[in-house]
Amino acid sequence: MMNVAHAVDAARRSGLEHSTREQRALALETIAASLDGHRTELVPIAHRETHLSEARLDGEITRTAAQLRFFAGVVREGSYLEASIDSADPTTVPPRPELRRILRPLGPVAVFTASNFPFAFSVLGNDTASALAAGCPVVVKAHPGHPELSRRCIEIGRAALLEAGLDSSALTLVEGFEAGRELLEHVEIRAAGFTGSEAGGRALYDIAVNRPAPIPFYGELGSLNPVVLTVAAATQRGADIAAGLVASFTRDAGQYCTKPGVVFAPAVGRFADAVAEYLPGAAAGALLTEGMQSRFAALAAELATDDAVTVRSGADSDTTPLVLELPADALLARPEHFLRECFGPLTLIVNYRDEAQLFAALTLCEGSLTGTIHAEPDEDVSGLTAHLAERAGRVLFNGWPTGVAIAWSQHHGGPWPATTATVHTSVGATAIRRWLTPLTYQDAPHSVLPSELLDGPVGIPRRIDGLLQLAGAELSRG
Amino acid sequence: MMNVAHAVDAARRSGLEHSTREQRALALETIAASLDGHRTELVPIAHRETHLSEARLDGEITRTAAQLRFFAGVVREGSYLEASIDSADPTTVPPRPELRRILRPLGPVAVFTASNFPFAFSVLGNDTASALAAGCPVVVKAHPGHPELSRRCIEIGRAALLEAGLDSSALTLVEGFEAGRELLEHVEIRAAGFTGSEAGGRALYDIAVNRPAPIPFYGELGSLNPVVLTVAAATQRGADIAAGLVASFTRDAGQYCTKPGVVFAPAVGRFADAVAEYLPGAAAGALLTEGMQSRFAALAAELATDDAVTVRSGADSDTTPLVLELPADALLARPEHFLRECFGPLTLIVNYRDEAQLFAALTLCEGSLTGTIHAEPDEDVSGLTAHLAERAGRVLFNGWPTGVAIAWSQHHGGPWPATTATVHTSVGATAIRRWLTPLTYQDAPHSVLPSELLDGPVGIPRRIDGLLQLAGAELSRG
Repeated sequence: MMNVAHAVDAARRSGLEHSTREQRALALETIAASLDGHRTELVPIAHRETHLSEARLDGEITRTAAQLRFFAGVVREGSYLEASIDSADPTTVPPRPELRRILRPLGPVAVFTASNFPFAFSVLGNDTASALAAGCPVVVKAHPGHPELSRRCIEIGRAALLEAGLDSSALTLVEGFEAGRELLEHVEIRAAGFTGSEAGGRALYDIAVNRPAPIPFYGELGSLNPVVLTVAAATQRGADIAAGLVASFTRDAGQYCTKPGVVFAPAVGRFADAVAEYLPGAAAGALLTEGMQSRFAALAAELATDDAVTVRSGADSDTTPLVLELPADALLARPEHFLRECFGPLTLIVNYRDEAQLFAALTLCEGSLTGTIHAEPDEDVSGLTAHLAERAGRVLFNGWPTGVAIAWSQHHGGPWPATTATVHTSVGATAIRRWLTPLTYQDAPHSVLPSELLDGPVGIPRRIDGLLQLAGAELSRG
Repeated sequence: MMNVAHAVDAARRSGLEHSTREQRALALETIAASLDGHRTELVPIAHRETHLSEARLDGEITRTAAQLRFFAGVVREGSYLEASIDSADPTTVPPRPELRRILRPLGPVAVFTASNFPFAFSVLGNDTASALAAGCPVVVKAHPGHPELSRRCIEIGRAALLEAGLDSSALTLVEGFEAGRELLEHVEIRAAGFTGSEAGGRALYDIAVNRPAPIPFYGELGSLNPVVLTVAAATQRGADIAAGLVASFTRDAGQYCTKPGVVFAPAVGRFADAVAEYLPGAAAGALLTEGMQSRFAALAAELATDDAVTVRSGADSDTTPLVLELPADALLARPEHFLRECFGPLTLIVNYRDEAQLFAALTLCEGSLTGTIHAEPDEDVSGLTAHLAERAGRVLFNGWPTGVAIAWSQHHGGPWPATTATVHTSVGATAIRRWLTPLTYQDAPHSVLPSELLDGPVGIPRRIDGLLQLAGAELSRG
C-alpha cells in the first residue's frame, strides 16, 4: 500500500500515456490471463471476505477477464480515438486551417471500487480496465469489504503490467476513507470512477465538483430498476414471470445494482400469490458486510411493518428474502417512503388498477439503470417503452436486468441517481470515453502528430474531410 | 418573453424528441436561411447594442448560419447516434441478449448566451444549434448585453421552426439574472450550456452540480491561450509574428475567448520591440458593455503599474491596446498576479531565458482553449507540443488562435477553467453529444425501436456485432 502523494506521483511518472495501443492491449490481455491463472488462489480469499459463493466468484473472474480482453479489442479497433482530419479550406467563414483531431488520455485517474463485485467492479474491474485502455494511470481506492483480495489483485495487476513491458507505477492501491478523500482532492487526479451507494457516491461527487478545479466524477449510485407486467403477461405467464423474479431479486442475496426493486403488476392478476409459490425455495446468504446486513434489516423492518404492506417471506436463512406487496394507491400517497433502494433480497410488488395509475406511479420513480417490460407479443408497448426510456438507460423485454453483458451495444447508466454523469456509461465499449479528452492539432508538423493522425492508411476507422472511412481505407484527400 | 415555468413547460410539450432527423435538419437550415434573410435588420441592432463593427457582425451572421447548416449535415449523416446492434450470444459470461444501442435526446436544456458573439454564441448560436440538432428543446437565457437582438433572434428562430413544421415551443427565451437561476434549478431541465466569464460560469456550475439531482453543465469560461515563440522563429520571423500578434489580440477589441493573452518570447529576441512597431496602427473600439470597460480599465491599470512591467500602448482610442512586457523571473515569482485573463485588447509578453525557464512558466498556466507555437520547420517541437497539449484543447502552429473554424475535427475546449467539462467540446460536430444520453434496448420488439435501430440498411453508419459499417452497407448478421 502506498500513500496518496506517492501513488499519484508514481502515476504521473509511469509514462502510460506514451504507450502504444498495442502495448496497452497486450497489457490488458496479460492481466486477464494472470487473473485466470490465479483463480484457485483468489476465489477462497474473496469468498472469505465477501460471503459470495465460490461458484459466483469463479464466474465473476471469468467475467472480469472477459472485460479486460474486451477493452483490448476496443483499443486495437481504434475507433474510440475518433480520429478525424480536415483539409484546409480558405473559402469558409471563418477560414479553415488543416485540423487533425484525436482523443487523448486525461492523465492519472482515481477508481473507487465496489463491494458487491470484488473482481468485476473492483481493483482490476471495469473502471480500471477502461482507464488503462485509454492510457490513463489508475490509483485504486480499495473497498474495505475485501482488503486482502484488493492487495493480491493489485500485485497481480502490477506484475502483469511489468510482464507486458509497461511501468507498474501506472497501477497502485490506496486504502482508507481519508486516503480516498485526499486522492479525490489531489490536483493531479483528472477524473474519478465510482460504484457504490447513493450516499457515499454523492459525498464523493460533491468533493469532486467543488474542488478549485473540478474534475469529472463518473459514479454509479442507486437504482430501483422498475419492472412492469402487462395484464396479458401476468395472466398468461404469471407463474414463469414469478419464478424469474424470485431468481433475479434473490440472486447473490439481492446485492446487484440491477436488482429488480419494484414490480408493477396488475391488481387483477394476483401476481404476488404466484410469487409466493416460489419463495419457500429462495434463501439468501449473509450480506457482504455487517454494516450492509444491519442496514438491510432496519430498512426491511421499516417497510415490512407498514400498514399498507403485505409481507411474504422466503426460506429462513442468513438473510431472509422478502416480497412486500402494496396497492399503487399507497405508493402514490407516500412515494418517498416506498421508492427507496434496499440493498439485499427484497422487492416491492405494487398492484396497479389501470394504465393511468401505472403511468402515474412510474413517473414517481427516479432514474434507474434498467427498466423491464413483461408483455405479450401482440401488445402495443410503445407508450410504456417511452415512459421507461426516460427513466432508465437500458430497457429490456421479457427478461431480467441482473447480469450485465459485456458488449459494444451495452449501456450501464441512467438519470440521477442511477449515475452522476448520465451521458456516459460504466460498462460497454464507450466506457473508455470517460477517460479521454479531445485534442485538435492545427497546421501541425507531422513530426509532432500521433501515428493515428498521420496521412494513411493507419489501420483504424477515421473521418477524412467529414467522411467516415473504415480501417485500411486509403486516405483520399479532396 | 416568458416566465421560466411556462418556458420549460412549453419545451416539455414541444415533442421535439419525436421529430425525425430530416425534420430537424430542415429546421436548422430554415433558421439559417431566415437569419441570412434578416441580415440588414439584425446587424444595426447588434451594432447599437454591442459596439462591434458592422463588418464583423455581418461576418458573424454568415458564421452562425454556417454552424446551423453544419449541424444539419451532422444530423443527416447520423453517425452521431452511435447506433450499434449486437446479436444474442448465450455462450458469453454473462450470456449476451440481443442489444441495440442509440443516443437519445436528454430533454429540455438551458442555454446561457455570451456577450461577445451576439449571433454565433447567443440565441441561435452553437449551443442552441447543437441542442436542437440533438432533439432537445432549448430555453435560452438572454444575455443582458444585447436584449433587443435576443428578442428578434428568438422570434426569427421560432418562426423558422414553425415554417419547418415543428412546434415553436421547442425554442423560448427568458431574461434576467433570477430567471437564469430558476431555469438552472428547474427539475425538468436536463443540461445547460454556457459561454462567459470564469466567475459567472463557476457560479452557475455550482448551482447545476449542487442540485438535488445534478445536471451536466457545459461551460466555456476563461482562457489565457499561451503563445510560444522559439528563438529561431523570433529571430527569423519576428516582425511577421509581431504583426500577427497585434492583429490577433486587438481583433474586435480583444474580446475573444481565444485571444492570445500571454506570449512567451526568447529574452534575446527583443520581440516586444518588434511588436511596438505595429502598435501605433492598432486601435480598439468600446468594449461590449460598460461593466467590461471598467473591469478592463481596472485590471489593465493594476498590471501596467507593476514594477516588473514595461508598457507599450497602441493608438489612443475608446480602449487603448496595451502590451505588457516582463521577464519570466517576475512571472515565476508571482504567477497568480500576472496569469489572469484580461478581457480586452491587452497581452503579456514574457521574456524567457532558456527552455527550462519556459517550461517552468508554462507549467504555471491553467487550462486554456488553445496553445500556439511559432517555430521554424527544422526545429524539434515535440516536447513543447506535449507540454501545451496537457494544457490546451487545440494546439496550433505558426498561426493565431482567434477565429474558430467550424469543422468535424474542431475542438473548442480544454482543462479547467477553459471549460467545466473537459471531455466535451462546444464547437465542432461532437458538440451535439453534450445533449444526448445512451439508451440500450434489450430483446426489444421491433415495434418500439427507433428507425435507426431496425434491421438495415437504414442509411447511417452503424456498428453491427462489433464491426463498424458505413451508411448503406447491408446488415450482415453472423
